[in-house]
Amino acid sequence: MTLSWLHAPVKPLNRDMQQAALARQAQLTKPPGALGQLEQLAVRLAAMQGAERPAVDRVAIAIFAADHGIAAENVSAFPQAVTGEMVKNFAHGGAAISVLAKMLAAQLEVVNLGTVNDPGEMPGVLRHVIAAGTANFAQGPAMDEEQLMRALQAGHDSVQRARQAGAQLYIGGEMGIANTTAAAALACALLGATPAALAGPGTGLDHKGVAHKAAVIERALALHAAHLGTPLECLRRVGGFEIAALSGAYLAAAQHGLPVLVDGFISSVAALVAVRCNPNINDWLLYAHASAEPGHRRVLEALQAQPLLSLGMRLGEGSGAASAVPLLRLACALHNGMATFAEAAVSGKL
Amino acid sequence: MTLSWLHAPVKPLNRDMQQAALARQAQLTKPPGALGQLEQLAVRLAAMQGAERPAVDRVAIAIFAADHGIAAENVSAFPQAVTGEMVKNFAHGGAAISVLAKMLAAQLEVVNLGTVNDPGEMPGVLRHVIAAGTANFAQGPAMDEEQLMRALQAGHDSVQRARQAGAQLYIGGEMGIANTTAAAALACALLGATPAALAGPGTGLDHKGVAHKAAVIERALALHAAHLGTPLECLRRVGGFEIAALSGAYLAAAQHGLPVLVDGFISSVAALVAVRCNPNINDWLLYAHASAEPGHRRVLEALQAQPLLSLGMRLGEGSGAASAVPLLRLACALHNGMATFAEAAVSGKL
Repeated sequence: MTLSWLHAPVKPLNRDMQQAALARQAQLTKPPGALGQLEQLAVRLAAMQGAERPAVDRVAIAIFAADHGIAAENVSAFPQAVTGEMVKNFAHGGAAISVLAKMLAAQLEVVNLGTVNDPGEMPGVLRHVIAAGTANFAQGPAMDEEQLMRALQAGHDSVQRARQAGAQLYIGGEMGIANTTAAAALACALLGATPAALAGPGTGLDHKGVAHKAAVIERALALHAAHLGTPLECLRRVGGFEIAALSGAYLAAAQHGLPVLVDGFISSVAALVAVRCNPNINDWLLYAHASAEPGHRRVLEALQAQPLLSLGMRLGEGSGAASAVPLLRLACALHNGMATFAEAAVSGKL
Repeated sequence: MTLSWLHAPVKPLNRDMQQAALARQAQLTKPPGALGQLEQLAVRLAAMQGAERPAVDRVAIAIFAADHGIAAENVSAFPQAVTGEMVKNFAHGGAAISVLAKMLAAQLEVVNLGTVNDPGEMPGVLRHVIAAGTANFAQGPAMDEEQLMRALQAGHDSVQRARQAGAQLYIGGEMGIANTTAAAALACALLGATPAALAGPGTGLDHKGVAHKAAVIERALALHAAHLGTPLECLRRVGGFEIAALSGAYLAAAQHGLPVLVDGFISSVAALVAVRCNPNINDWLLYAHASAEPGHRRVLEALQAQPLLSLGMRLGEGSGAASAVPLLRLACALHNGMATFAEAAVSGKL
């Protein structure tokens, strides 16, 4: 299985509309720059959407769920059954992201990539089952080649559905017990960082648990050390299905010019994989928040990200990204709806 | 003129509902604490509103506009006529806060406390004119006693209107050319800080302009030095009508148990005056954002504030507070709408 789209070029930003939006911002009735990042957001969205007056009314959120073989190493504070249980909770509307999607009137799709505790068929869940979780990457590669391609494809397909639905913004989220371990291992492989620097409490490990998690990652990285030469091979060896799906989604979104709002630690590591595949992808990624997971800061720095929120969130599911959507909408409303100095007959700077 | 309500007691928080909300948070399908400040917000609002499931659907925003005699010292990057011009812009829907209020479906009132360039009667503007601006506080007190009381009363009355309209959250904003100079002087008087530490660019002074502004404040504080013993006397001598109105509004809101979302630098200084009058008032104040105005950090520290946003905004008008309203709404929606572990049959922590 090869993916013809994987190395397709990224859509260029519309620099004319970027300039037009910047010119408009300079005319609005406020001191230049006084709306801070809200101004920059409007200008970036204008450049992405090729529209002087951008909009993010239609938001598509996709949650990718998958289990991780590395959970056998006791690296999570919650049992592995939770992944499948949460798939049901997403679909039934009880999870944080379900509530947020409803508040935002966003389209929410749940993609089951394979869980140990399989919730089966149910309305609101797309089955794209690759396997009942990855293999334990402390003992061998997390995925084989075909599994990796199928996971990347799942992300690509989700973006295509979002585009067909007319989405103006794409958010990917994830659920998978032990996936901060996979994300931390992957970030270590990509950044050359130590597990001690990137392993964190995840869903709630104590100090001892975090040290154990770092030791597990260290052992796994030693096992794979000779084979971490490309971002996709790092992803295959120590990543996860849902992480790969997010990377595939970000690649596809940037190729087709759909703006992305990246969630927290795990999503940012998936973004780092995509950006290492093609640095231009970063033009299409907005970063929603700085997570409480300590490794996130290092990953955000590598991505030169300026996250919008820093609320101590660390849930995943796309919840941090969803929480930042209102800021994008307000940025667009201000950009599109404020009067200019001329329109309002307000005097300019001395 | 004396204000009978000025020293009325602050309404106590409902500690039972605070505990009930905390207990509910612990049952929701997420790792404990994983929603960070959104959890704390929901719990604080529960304690304020006396409801296990709080809501901030109905938001009242009041913009207080007034001119400042200190503008004669060339401390602003914009001409003084802008204050009156912006009153029109607020009412006509072209200002940032007008756009934000509409997006939030919030009630917006504009209170004209006195401008040099008087926009006159117009729909959507309440005339509560005290004088055509304060006196130049580099030469004498900004206000006389009666003017101070009338300004405080204007804030009190605004809160009463918000309560009568059923508001669940109150936001005060301000407009007044040169009011960062008044706010910085007032903060210096209250905190014992130096003008160099608290004077900033405001609407866009350059380095030289900021140094001049600090020198003006230093001279003014020397003039008033023997008379800065109480927060209200500081307010009268170096404050402004709109700053006093905000202080009056915060006092009244806390007395009547209406939660407040405080905006940026100037609003926070008004909050500091109110908190110095009665420390319990801080129970009712939520802090929306950390402004780009450099003095704000020091004021927020004095208020032990944990602002929600830090987007480099520095516009005033209540715009930072309005931008944070969606976070309060999402916090309530998550708190009220998420399933518990029991409801969703999701396994708990190991």
